[in-house]
Amino acid sequence: MPYGYNGKILRVNLSSGRIWEEHPEEDFYRRYFGGRGFISYYLLKELKPGIDPLGPDNPLIFAAGLVTGVPVGGCGRNSVGARSPLTSAYGDAEAGGYWGAELKAAGYDAIIIEGRSSSPVYLWLHDSQAEIRNASHLWGKPTARSQALIHQELGDPVIRTAQIGSAGERLVRYACIMNDLSHVAGRTGMGAVMGSKNLKAVAVRGHHRPSLADAGRVADLARWLRDNAMFNARQLHELGTAGLLMGLNSRGGLPTRNFHQGVFEGAGNISGERLRDTILVRRGSCFACPVRCKPEVALSHPHSVDPVYGGPEYETLASLGSNCGIDDLAAIARGNQLCNSYGLDTISTGAAIAFAMECFEQGILTQKDADGLELRFGNSQAMLELIEKIARRQGLGDILAEGVARAAQHIGRGAAEVALHIKGQELPLHEPRYKQGLGLGYAVSPTGADHCHNIHDSLYTGPGPQLEDFKTLGILEPLPTTDLSPAKVRMVYYIVNWRHLQNCLVFCYFVPLNFLRTAELVQAVTGWNTSVWELMKVGERCAAMTRAFNCREGFSEEDDRLPERFFTPFTSGPLQGVSVDREKLREARDIYYGMAGWTGPGGMPTLARLHELGIGWVADAVKLKTEYNKTV
Amino acid sequence: MPYGYNGKILRVNLSSGRIWEEHPEEDFYRRYFGGRGFISYYLLKELKPGIDPLGPDNPLIFAAGLVTGVPVGGCGRNSVGARSPLTSAYGDAEAGGYWGAELKAAGYDAIIIEGRSSSPVYLWLHDSQAEIRNASHLWGKPTARSQALIHQELGDPVIRTAQIGSAGERLVRYACIMNDLSHVAGRTGMGAVMGSKNLKAVAVRGHHRPSLADAGRVADLARWLRDNAMFNARQLHELGTAGLLMGLNSRGGLPTRNFHQGVFEGAGNISGERLRDTILVRRGSCFACPVRCKPEVALSHPHSVDPVYGGPEYETLASLGSNCGIDDLAAIARGNQLCNSYGLDTISTGAAIAFAMECFEQGILTQKDADGLELRFGNSQAMLELIEKIARRQGLGDILAEGVARAAQHIGRGAAEVALHIKGQELPLHEPRYKQGLGLGYAVSPTGADHCHNIHDSLYTGPGPQLEDFKTLGILEPLPTTDLSPAKVRMVYYIVNWRHLQNCLVFCYFVPLNFLRTAELVQAVTGWNTSVWELMKVGERCAAMTRAFNCREGFSEEDDRLPERFFTPFTSGPLQGVSVDREKLREARDIYYGMAGWTGPGGMPTLARLHELGIGWVADAVKLKTEYNKTV
Repeated sequence: MPYGYNGKILRVNLSSGRIWEEHPEEDFYRRYFGGRGFISYYLLKELKPGIDPLGPDNPLIFAAGLVTGVPVGGCGRNSVGARSPLTSAYGDAEAGGYWGAELKAAGYDAIIIEGRSSSPVYLWLHDSQAEIRNASHLWGKPTARSQALIHQELGDPVIRTAQIGSAGERLVRYACIMNDLSHVAGRTGMGAVMGSKNLKAVAVRGHHRPSLADAGRVADLARWLRDNAMFNARQLHELGTAGLLMGLNSRGGLPTRNFHQGVFEGAGNISGERLRDTILVRRGSCFACPVRCKPEVALSHPHSVDPVYGGPEYETLASLGSNCGIDDLAAIARGNQLCNSYGLDTISTGAAIAFAMECFEQGILTQKDADGLELRFGNSQAMLELIEKIARRQGLGDILAEGVARAAQHIGRGAAEVALHIKGQELPLHEPRYKQGLGLGYAVSPTGADHCHNIHDSLYTGPGPQLEDFKTLGILEPLPTTDLSPAKVRMVYYIVNWRHLQNCLVFCYFVPLNFLRTAELVQAVTGWNTSVWELMKVGERCAAMTRAFNCREGFSEEDDRLPERFFTPFTSGPLQGVSVDREKLREARDIYYGMAGWTGPGGMPTLARLHELGIGWVADAVKLKTEYNKTV
Repeated sequence: MPYGYNGKILRVNLSSGRIWEEHPEEDFYRRYFGGRGFISYYLLKELKPGIDPLGPDNPLIFAAGLVTGVPVGGCGRNSVGARSPLTSAYGDAEAGGYWGAELKAAGYDAIIIEGRSSSPVYLWLHDSQAEIRNASHLWGKPTARSQALIHQELGDPVIRTAQIGSAGERLVRYACIMNDLSHVAGRTGMGAVMGSKNLKAVAVRGHHRPSLADAGRVADLARWLRDNAMFNARQLHELGTAGLLMGLNSRGGLPTRNFHQGVFEGAGNISGERLRDTILVRRGSCFACPVRCKPEVALSHPHSVDPVYGGPEYETLASLGSNCGIDDLAAIARGNQLCNSYGLDTISTGAAIAFAMECFEQGILTQKDADGLELRFGNSQAMLELIEKIARRQGLGDILAEGVARAAQHIGRGAAEVALHIKGQELPLHEPRYKQGLGLGYAVSPTGADHCHNIHDSLYTGPGPQLEDFKTLGILEPLPTTDLSPAKVRMVYYIVNWRHLQNCLVFCYFVPLNFLRTAELVQAVTGWNTSVWELMKVGERCAAMTRAFNCREGFSEEDDRLPERFFTPFTSGPLQGVSVDREKLREARDIYYGMAGWTGPGGMPTLARLHELGIGWVADAVKLKTEYNKTV
């Protein structure tokens, strides 16, 4: 078996209770690496097109990656994927923490879960043993409680859990999967898929350590990270991702009141600095990571907040905060805890609430529609109550639990115009009018509005070491955040592919290993004489597979678009007058397709491009028409 | 100025006598590297489409590369390019030896020569000084003589010369440029372009040493090469490229009698082993190279051969030997000397003679047409006489001096069928029915039949370290030489791009630095945090530029084809029954276009691909129609 891997993929059929193993060849590992690579591979190979994402035919795939469990910061994560019940397209999400590393330690590289159990169960994997266990007593419990019960039952408090809360059990379409209460596989509704299988949790524990081709070089890289993390990622350590908030606000790019504004007058009250100075009690971490960017917050008044649930990061602060017009940090921290205990994606949850608030403000929803809530922007109590309602699918919460796209359809009366989503997934808290490359990334992402398949313009432009890193790829010039020139499209294209690669490695975006050091890490772990070329191509391969999957499900260029709101200029703030130019975006998208070879029917990767990526089989997997096979 | 470079490009107008310098920015160097990168850049930027390749408007560009002059084996070379008088397409050739390193030492990265002198001149560059000098007394002299006169005149026997012989002076369309008498920029007729300018030679001498970002790492790489050359390149050292001959013959892939057969019964008489055991007197070398693969041969009877002209390498042995049905090693050595003293490309010269022999055998040419020569395959005396006739443009030689394509047109009577060329350039001695990937490479090469833009299947397939190297690029499986599957197309595509990169570095193909070590060398020389990705993209960029140049000159997919002969199966030998499959080649070519993004009108790179390569300006340079600009 190749260095770094266990060489074992666990397969579980919850309908039949059957458990078995697969042992792929080294070439499989080298071609797909792990994480999203494995998920998209198996979905293309095994999923029947058109199945119900919440039915038994949708496999739920937990996947570690090439570097998972390697004792270097950023290597503790895991992916989990399936056809998304939110978008009906390719779905996956990643969580940090320790669970991924523990899965590898338990002896597996991935778990593919099919079917549906007739009653609630959880999976227990430990040192190459796997069993399906009764979870009836865990069903309905908040995540902290069910985790405690699992620890108690199995007699080991170090067991790592990936689990759903009530939201997943009730098939909220943006239910997430919680790792150890505070690390979240948030997007695309993987928690609902898990719930649909009557699967409460996957508990893992093990003592394998990944074999390393060159343990000395791995240790050197870990040491380099330790020595440099505080230089390259000091703000991240100090303030967490929340450190971004004030900068975005001052540049006019902080999503505010359902993306109506880019500046929030209450930003200072919900900033990373404010969080640090008031409610922060600890800086949490992930497996082996010296950065420690995870805030843990505590509070007893006016809300009770338990640090076991971590604390709000940037996305949550902006989602439940500025984008709902709320500057009440305590309420946001409480909302974060509610989401984590119910297993709700804070991004989509906040977006659904902001959507409802705008509907309310515009008179699309009445107070009666809102179950008596005064759903105005800024009403933090209403926000907290709506979270409870969504998780329990009560009243308006039941409608919002379907996601803003379906909710708007249900509500009618012009609600669709204020439902901000792409392919059915709500927008993360990154403003496409400011980060225009990211806007393009949203449009072409297989999972719709998803910042995790995307470029963070703000991190990668301007002078300084970031530009130096880009030169490794041949991008020599700095490109402004609001630029959408062909040169910027190339940068987006490269970074999106690199993101895909990172999701195949299952390596953290935030750990400051640049392109070359990442290649060095892969080489040290596996012994493969790899290169940035091979890594980029793994990413591009994965992008092509997720694209092909979506084409098979009927998605096309038509679905690669931004909500209308972003073609409307800001009316205030530093970006006053700035919007996405519709024609420029269309051109940029077409150039992106051309670069990616997504110029087959419906935006499919061409056969030639599939062959260049060594995945000619994908053309068969999507059952392309004969004329397609002639179009190269 | 960037490490490794002088930061100076010399410009000379021979019509006006004006000499000036350009000082490009660092980005220019990092984007195009040198060699073919510079040549294709300037041809696209400055050449008017449709000009006469032998007129004053065709610039002749001598270019060193990124690594030229760096004290590591493989770094002594130079490129020289222009619009080709043989193909009317993009033209360039590379020569080894010392001239390239000396050009850099003289203070220049490249020389762009425009116009036409009214009388013979030569250029003399020394330590950042450039002058145009009278060469009337050198005109018509054999290369050894004119070099001696230059040394004498300038009082320095270490001056390096790049010069033409009578063939270039008389505009033989495949006249070459000779570096120091035995290193040859052979293909595409650059010697004729030089002759058309009345430029006899470029003599260079200097004392600059390239500044290196990390001289220690450069020295380490040079040491690694020295220590490993004899392991990785032992056969090359022992036998030169001639070491390939017997293996090709035994596998049925040795071009014999104008590519009628793949096995030559007299191969043993013209092999590298025979050469070593009989006429070899020294193993010559190039700048800083530990491999020393250049045979130097001497002979007084039955022919006189002077080792100053080097000795025949594989291409020459097969071209003047097996492909003419000749197994007389002494005659071949003499033929090699004639070609080097007249400045004739031995590949095209031998091909022209083989063509004439087949015409004679088939009755297309009579003895009268052949100036009384009995032009049968195997007639070594006729071969030697024909070389003289071609160089002097006498009789049949005058016709053959135009290249086989034009000669066949002139002769008529079915001669076109036996004229083996692609885009007008004669085939090198690599059999497309055996090396099928190379056959595809011939078809798509910007210079027609050219093994220097191409894959050498025999070197890169099968198990062993070569396959390990390919894994660096993500190619995981061995691919048979006769394979032409989409996986093979990818391998060809990658290697062709890598060849382009090597031609931008101006680095020898034969020096065994693999992909990763090459990137390490570039990094050590320049200090750039480069990667195999950046290098491959430099190669792809260059491929796209040469392609775009040809499209501007009216070339299209129609020109990317093989001679009919290769669709006819071998009738004997190990490859009996094997031919190129017409349909498979067409499919492979289309897949290649798809991979390269050559799917614009006439096979132009798409606008999206140009942007991905950071050369959107090329679309303007080729003055693409509006509808093209809409096609991405």
